[in-house]
Amino acid sequence: MSSESVKEDCFAWAARDPSGVLSPYKFKRRTTGEDDVSLKITHCGICYADVIWTRNKLGDSKYPLVPGHEIVGMVQEAGPNVSRFKPGDRVGVGTYVNSCKECEYCNDREEVHCEKGSVFTFNAIDLDGTITKGGYSSYIVVHERYCFMIPDDYPLALAAPLLCAGITVYNPMMRHGMNQPGKSLGVIGLGGLGHMAVKFGKAFGLKVTVFSTSISKKEEALGVLGADNFVVSSDQEQMKALSKSLDFIVDTASGDHPFDPYMSLLKTAGVLVLVGFPSEVKFSPASLILGMRTVSGSITGGTKVTQEMLDFCAAKKIYPEIELIPIDYANEALERVVKRDVKYRFVIDIENSLK
Amino acid sequence: MSSESVKEDCFAWAARDPSGVLSPYKFKRRTTGEDDVSLKITHCGICYADVIWTRNKLGDSKYPLVPGHEIVGMVQEAGPNVSRFKPGDRVGVGTYVNSCKECEYCNDREEVHCEKGSVFTFNAIDLDGTITKGGYSSYIVVHERYCFMIPDDYPLALAAPLLCAGITVYNPMMRHGMNQPGKSLGVIGLGGLGHMAVKFGKAFGLKVTVFSTSISKKEEALGVLGADNFVVSSDQEQMKALSKSLDFIVDTASGDHPFDPYMSLLKTAGVLVLVGFPSEVKFSPASLILGMRTVSGSITGGTKVTQEMLDFCAAKKIYPEIELIPIDYANEALERVVKRDVKYRFVIDIENSLK
Repeated sequence: MSSESVKEDCFAWAARDPSGVLSPYKFKRRTTGEDDVSLKITHCGICYADVIWTRNKLGDSKYPLVPGHEIVGMVQEAGPNVSRFKPGDRVGVGTYVNSCKECEYCNDREEVHCEKGSVFTFNAIDLDGTITKGGYSSYIVVHERYCFMIPDDYPLALAAPLLCAGITVYNPMMRHGMNQPGKSLGVIGLGGLGHMAVKFGKAFGLKVTVFSTSISKKEEALGVLGADNFVVSSDQEQMKALSKSLDFIVDTASGDHPFDPYMSLLKTAGVLVLVGFPSEVKFSPASLILGMRTVSGSITGGTKVTQEMLDFCAAKKIYPEIELIPIDYANEALERVVKRDVKYRFVIDIENSLK
Repeated sequence: MSSESVKEDCFAWAARDPSGVLSPYKFKRRTTGEDDVSLKITHCGICYADVIWTRNKLGDSKYPLVPGHEIVGMVQEAGPNVSRFKPGDRVGVGTYVNSCKECEYCNDREEVHCEKGSVFTFNAIDLDGTITKGGYSSYIVVHERYCFMIPDDYPLALAAPLLCAGITVYNPMMRHGMNQPGKSLGVIGLGGLGHMAVKFGKAFGLKVTVFSTSISKKEEALGVLGADNFVVSSDQEQMKALSKSLDFIVDTASGDHPFDPYMSLLKTAGVLVLVGFPSEVKFSPASLILGMRTVSGSITGGTKVTQEMLDFCAAKKIYPEIELIPIDYANEALERVVKRDVKYRFVIDIENSLK
């Protein structure tokens, strides 16, 4: 079957222009290659990245644009060289779908840092020159290297947010040794990433303090997510009481916020990991120098740590809190993501609503 | 002998007001306590900190103020409990002379991070309530814990700058694993700290690139200090050529400078350590996140790593470049420090000029 004869059998929702409004769209995907897995998508999480690129916030959007990089589904076809997956397997795909496979970082299974650049799951130019299209679609074809096995019994809908929100906080937490029971963790912001940081923190045996701009999240943070402490970040007395008390902070806030007040909460040699995307990072050198503190950044994770994270979530029964929605609700959901009105991640029920 | 009867036998130079002008001054030091070493000072290095506090830049200067925290000399008296030193030993004293001796950090010999605050060598309130006075003086009495053995044959004058400038760069270099031969190091700024970072870098087997605002330092950086590469930081082509090429950067610049251009030179997971004191640190989150880079701060070092650094310098024959001056030249030297007109550290010949 030549590629020309492949009919437009992939159903999707795509943005057509910087309004970002999604509407039904049909297109072709490549045929399943020797190393590829073809995946019938069952669920796709909604990430703030979907807002950024459907609305051309960075000026590089290529329309029609099919967003979505928290993808789970079932293998429907596997190429002849595929060794890890067979039809019927439950598989996830995250924020990238290709890389050079040869460089130092690819060899270390840190493919997201590929020297030639990893190929993002949507709006990127793939190695064959096509534009990648994401998971707001009925199926996807991906090199098996960038596919993850969803552990048995882990609900597919709940696995979706792990593939971006989950790994984005899990990876730096592991890298900076935040899995030491008894240590103290601060989590700034309680959205998709923040609520996962709280859950990982508790699973690691940490004492977790949530920082939020709004008292409204207190009950859920303590009751539902299991945090030990909740602080409204504008409350200077509460902040002062925590001076030099935290070993780690995971900063998931994408809105602009001061850094010095949070850094003063870190113990000597404490680490703040930035995973949100404010417009700038600014602080006094004293905040860094006097306690030999560290500020570090992180972006998702390689394939090795991603699979480890999925297995860890299954073993420890760590599940994201989600709001399951039909594809018809995607536009409203994106609006609500902008307003941070979601507890704590939208997941699109692709299987039952995208026909 | 009661303390009242101790005559003013310590000769010094002190600043009397925020003009910072130093002039001869006599005062009493405490008698040598059971755990104390009394040290006849032979040399004292001049650090930028001496400018900051003699001129009351932070608003907390206590006059008369005797600066100096790069102190070396000979033991003239040791208290009965002193085990590590005896009269005639060659000893150094650095940036702090006391701490609580009980907290987690003191127990780890990271006394500079003492939970109750380490007592700085000058302009600080000591545990007995007296104001500490530094090394622009004929002798000093210090608890033996905060004294370091200068290795045999290491010239005393050259040992002085190790006690602040040396340890300030050595400590974070060790802590962040910069002692891995074959890795690449960038050094921003070529003053007292920067020139030691170059020397340590070469001793560790690193490929060292010096960044400076002025081409005038190129010949010395390559010829005298042994750097492998020299880049004028305003030269965008040279900077671009180094994109993502450095494992580490030691930033010793105290003047304000942009951080993003330097951070773009770091490889994935690269580390920039800030030891200078600009007015603020500001960069784009992308500089941190996309390559999971790290920015970390550091201040001098504990007693354990300081002694290790001295021993390392002796073993590897690492010597600071100094300009030896008499005490009478101290005021002019401080002026030249402000103008960064020193190669690369002034050391006052206390023994031969302060009488």
